[in-house]
Amino acid sequence: MDSQQFREAAISSIDEIVKYYDTIEDRRVVSSVEPGYLRKLLPEEAPQNGETWADIQKDIETKVLPGITHWQSPNFLAWFPSSSSYPAMLGEMYSTAFTGAAFNWVCSPVVTELETIVLDWLARAFALPPCYLSTGPTHGGGVIHGTASEAIATVMVAARDKYLREATAHITDDEEREDAIALRRTKLVALGSVATHSATKKAAQIAGVRFRAVPVHAGDGYKMTGAELRNTIAALHAKGLEVFYLTATLGTTDTCAIDDFDSIADVLDEIAPAATLTSEQKRDGQGEIWVHVDAAYAGAALVCLEYQHLTPVLARFHSYNTNLHKWLLVNFDCSVLYVRDRTWLTDALSVSLAILKNDHTDSGLVTDYRDWQIPFGRRFRSLKVWFVIRMYGISGLQAHIRKHVKLAEDFADMLRTRPDLFEIVTGPRFALTVFKLKGKSQAATVQEVNALTKKSYDDVLTDGQIFMSSTVVGGVFAIRHCPATPFVEGHHVKKHFEILVSIAEKTLAEA
Amino acid sequence: MDSQQFREAAISSIDEIVKYYDTIEDRRVVSSVEPGYLRKLLPEEAPQNGETWADIQKDIETKVLPGITHWQSPNFLAWFPSSSSYPAMLGEMYSTAFTGAAFNWVCSPVVTELETIVLDWLARAFALPPCYLSTGPTHGGGVIHGTASEAIATVMVAARDKYLREATAHITDDEEREDAIALRRTKLVALGSVATHSATKKAAQIAGVRFRAVPVHAGDGYKMTGAELRNTIAALHAKGLEVFYLTATLGTTDTCAIDDFDSIADVLDEIAPAATLTSEQKRDGQGEIWVHVDAAYAGAALVCLEYQHLTPVLARFHSYNTNLHKWLLVNFDCSVLYVRDRTWLTDALSVSLAILKNDHTDSGLVTDYRDWQIPFGRRFRSLKVWFVIRMYGISGLQAHIRKHVKLAEDFADMLRTRPDLFEIVTGPRFALTVFKLKGKSQAATVQEVNALTKKSYDDVLTDGQIFMSSTVVGGVFAIRHCPATPFVEGHHVKKHFEILVSIAEKTLAEA
Repeated sequence: MDSQQFREAAISSIDEIVKYYDTIEDRRVVSSVEPGYLRKLLPEEAPQNGETWADIQKDIETKVLPGITHWQSPNFLAWFPSSSSYPAMLGEMYSTAFTGAAFNWVCSPVVTELETIVLDWLARAFALPPCYLSTGPTHGGGVIHGTASEAIATVMVAARDKYLREATAHITDDEEREDAIALRRTKLVALGSVATHSATKKAAQIAGVRFRAVPVHAGDGYKMTGAELRNTIAALHAKGLEVFYLTATLGTTDTCAIDDFDSIADVLDEIAPAATLTSEQKRDGQGEIWVHVDAAYAGAALVCLEYQHLTPVLARFHSYNTNLHKWLLVNFDCSVLYVRDRTWLTDALSVSLAILKNDHTDSGLVTDYRDWQIPFGRRFRSLKVWFVIRMYGISGLQAHIRKHVKLAEDFADMLRTRPDLFEIVTGPRFALTVFKLKGKSQAATVQEVNALTKKSYDDVLTDGQIFMSSTVVGGVFAIRHCPATPFVEGHHVKKHFEILVSIAEKTLAEA
Repeated sequence: MDSQQFREAAISSIDEIVKYYDTIEDRRVVSSVEPGYLRKLLPEEAPQNGETWADIQKDIETKVLPGITHWQSPNFLAWFPSSSSYPAMLGEMYSTAFTGAAFNWVCSPVVTELETIVLDWLARAFALPPCYLSTGPTHGGGVIHGTASEAIATVMVAARDKYLREATAHITDDEEREDAIALRRTKLVALGSVATHSATKKAAQIAGVRFRAVPVHAGDGYKMTGAELRNTIAALHAKGLEVFYLTATLGTTDTCAIDDFDSIADVLDEIAPAATLTSEQKRDGQGEIWVHVDAAYAGAALVCLEYQHLTPVLARFHSYNTNLHKWLLVNFDCSVLYVRDRTWLTDALSVSLAILKNDHTDSGLVTDYRDWQIPFGRRFRSLKVWFVIRMYGISGLQAHIRKHVKLAEDFADMLRTRPDLFEIVTGPRFALTVFKLKGKSQAATVQEVNALTKKSYDDVLTDGQIFMSSTVVGGVFAIRHCPATPFVEGHHVKKHFEILVSIAEKTLAEA
């Protein structure tokens, strides 16, 4: 394929993509293929000789699209969105064209520099405390990771190593120190709440430390509180274990709860007061607890002034992440991670090879982001972020968030018009409403109501017009409605509600 | 930006990209900007209101391109290539359009199924042993990771947990077992050779285990041997430490050496004979050592029959990776990882959330690749792999590899025509030639020759017509020439040589 053949193929692909987006609403939102569908359609071995683009392109509609679940459909209401936008798609086109394994500054300086700049732009747009700016007082800064899971694994490793480094600072012999670190590591516990995304538990598996979950309660709206955190830490201390890390969440996966940051910070100041811990105390088992705030989905809302009261307390924590690919119009993958002190990452993750030696890195003037992450090479992901911010402007991003928040409020109001059918479990919070069916009578047990809700949920999936996810919170089976995709409008949400009413009425009538 | 505005912008971007590729040779291969160049050109804050595409697109040429190092230039000879191709770029366009956080099968079945199929295609094309096929006898299979670093961190975590699981299989109480695992982990050592990519050391930092390097020698061509491995393991055992993991390399970073797989496998069979180890032996400190083969760059050559004698021994190891984004025309990022038994990955990495529950996963009929990797969500990366394989065919991929191997042989022949100036240190191996300058006299010390080579290398960088990387092997400063980019041809390599001659002559004259 030469450049002119590519040009023709690319234009024809753009035409197909435009048509796909223009008619996305007409497609069944969830793929209905059976497991193994594709193996039946493809040869067992790679072709020996090249095929034509015309033959390949045909297979998009006939073999690929049947297996796509349409995340940009206005009828996609499951999990959290993974949003797409035209400016981000243009960014991906250019970044693919400028391909390279940009593992250090000289590999393509713009890949590093644009990332630092747009992450500073975003930190200001989100009203994050200045400690998270690359130019801030504590030498912090932001970096683009693929997913929140990578960001959390990375900061947990950095937190573990910071804790162990401080605990063994008095040992000067290298081998003795390695032994002391290995032994001390056996006591370490990472915490999240029971509502924290599984990424934290997985990060603990990766980092080779224990994981424990702090209980949350319906009465607190499923948020983690300082009081429960204190209890959990006390119980672990009683067993001789040491807590070095905590994920606090701004917008939990199930219900978009916001953990009680103020009381969490207060409890940690009381238990492990970072500012006054002496090196002797750190040696003897009282290290600072690193708090990472996971705002994977809801953090996007911080572009709106009405949510920015949430951010000053973040200065009391250590790191923070938001997935721009969820609710901020940057195509997957793009999770922005901020740390208050970037040396915490580089101390844990830097290694050096002779082949990578270059004057710029050695001068200390440049950032080598490979030491801020698990992968070595990097894609040019800041380009799509830059395009999205510039084409929408902050006001456009605010309008995007506010539209969805309003749609969810309207949806919750609709649910409230049918108290005979529905009951809201939580929300709407950040465009997410979690609800269940009403029991047939006041005397219905939790199990009976769960069964009814589950039946309705299954029927919604079978019906196939809309796609939602379910969850179980506090023993209650519930349905999640999250209308936060780019093309969703009021009339779609009205239709979602009508479908739900019709199915719920049927479920209750048959029960 | 509506879909028609996107169409226009995308076509104009395609035109710019085609022009960029058609004239890439005219650009200075390495960016010559100074650190901090971009911050001077951009505003300190994100724009409040949206800008036009015309304004943004202008900035590509004026602000972005000056900061790009042109990895597709025929004058890019540094590190290893990160190759681009038109079919892969088309794949990225579609995969961006079908954006979603495909963390499980139902998120878009084709994302999972196409990945399994094309990775089986590739395993066959590389002549990997059947144990690495998804349909193979040991329930193995392949998965796409971003980079080799991620792949290595992932398999090291899996190896660590497999070792610890087997070592503690006799303990039934959960808490007691957790304690035993934590204590046993303190003894664990991961190995590579001193020529192994830093990814292995970094993976050990991430996994929280010790790292040690097996020596390599110039006399062995810098490959790791079974004999040195035996010595290293014995020394560690003498200290009460346990080796659980080894990275062996097919094509090391510095010189493209191939570790001596047969003697490595023989030594491991002798020390920790996986087939006959009893659970008592595993309890008492004699676990199986997981061997991962890192073929990040050179593995691409296995599409050619003349390299496939290297693969039967891989059946004696545990996992294997190749970066298609290096030398196989799939744009960054795309590292394929194979394991002999996929449950080793899922046992170490799976976690579950109520919100992710679905009938397909529960049925066991589908693969949820999130449990084969560190990130949670996934891009649709198999699409670009599929397009590349189909448009080139296996024969086209073979021609691509053979062209570069031949160019490197020609280059080495040219070096040999000037024994007064150059001496080959290693190679050519897999299109990589590592060379140094000749000393002024027979009596020149290593230090003197190193200084000469370094001076020439620095002058090549300053000259700017070609971009190479340097390394230090066995105390020798050397220059690496790796002509493996898509557009490089014989006349380019001739010109590389002429530039090198001219600079080397000047260096030696001035010395």
